[in-house]
Amino acid sequence: MNNDTRIKDVMDKAIAEAKKTMNADVGGPFGAAIIDSNGKIISVASNSVLKDHDPTAHAEMNAIRMAGEKLGTHDLTGCTLVTTAYPCPMCLGATIWANIKHVIYGCRPKDAEAIGFRDDFIYRFIRDDYPDKKVLVLTEKLREQCLDLFQEYKNKEKTIY
Amino acid sequence: MNNDTRIKDVMDKAIAEAKKTMNADVGGPFGAAIIDSNGKIISVASNSVLKDHDPTAHAEMNAIRMAGEKLGTHDLTGCTLVTTAYPCPMCLGATIWANIKHVIYGCRPKDAEAIGFRDDFIYRFIRDDYPDKKVLVLTEKLREQCLDLFQEYKNKEKTIY
Repeated sequence: MNNDTRIKDVMDKAIAEAKKTMNADVGGPFGAAIIDSNGKIISVASNSVLKDHDPTAHAEMNAIRMAGEKLGTHDLTGCTLVTTAYPCPMCLGATIWANIKHVIYGCRPKDAEAIGFRDDFIYRFIRDDYPDKKVLVLTEKLREQCLDLFQEYKNKEKTIY
Repeated sequence: MNNDTRIKDVMDKAIAEAKKTMNADVGGPFGAAIIDSNGKIISVASNSVLKDHDPTAHAEMNAIRMAGEKLGTHDLTGCTLVTTAYPCPMCLGATIWANIKHVIYGCRPKDAEAIGFRDDFIYRFIRDDYPDKKVLVLTEKLREQCLDLFQEYKNKEKTIY
């Protein structure tokens, strides 16, 4: 099986999972899988925001969490994320934190916007390319006190992750 | 108790939670709380990436997930996120998905960078302000097939979230 056939097989599984849950009103039309460097599937998941009462439960997040649990590490170096849509900033952030270096996606952020999702809006918010800043106001307070916490961390033995 | 005293009290609790777990090697020096519109604490959490083998288990994510579970909804409209550091793009995305409109933060992304964390790097990656694109490669494949999934969703009765 060549690489493209393998990816299509993985994407088919992500799509099947997405269809199953979206039609049960578990969450939106999004599916994702994590595969290792040999193309072996570690996890397949879909959006479960509604069922789990969890705004973070996007398909990619669920797939990353399942893979971390399965492999016993937060570090998914060498893995690839296959997802039905370009990850939103939350999922893109999670992908980088997980040390995943390759994402294969189907739909674009604008495609998700066309069916009512805010992925592209959040990208524009982060890029300061959105006029209505009132959607989210960020206020700095008590920085000195929080810097003391960072200093305490800096002084201790630890792993950076 | 005025508003500033209340926020200091909430931040103190977030810092205390962060110290407790960072010193047990559960996760990094980050704490967060969700409060409702009356200033009542709904959840307090800290980073548990290492203990949970979960790269998504930042303090803000854990606090949002706990609040969603407690309130029985993914929609945290009216709540405020109080956090020891400016949310990374993952946590900022989660905040917007949760419909939270106000974040009070202590340290800045550059402060987190100074103690070894990649929050600021991920912001620069999203803003296309980082030279090394190889940290993460995103490849579009099978878009038409994934658009069929979106179309199926578009045609069905549903809640947008």
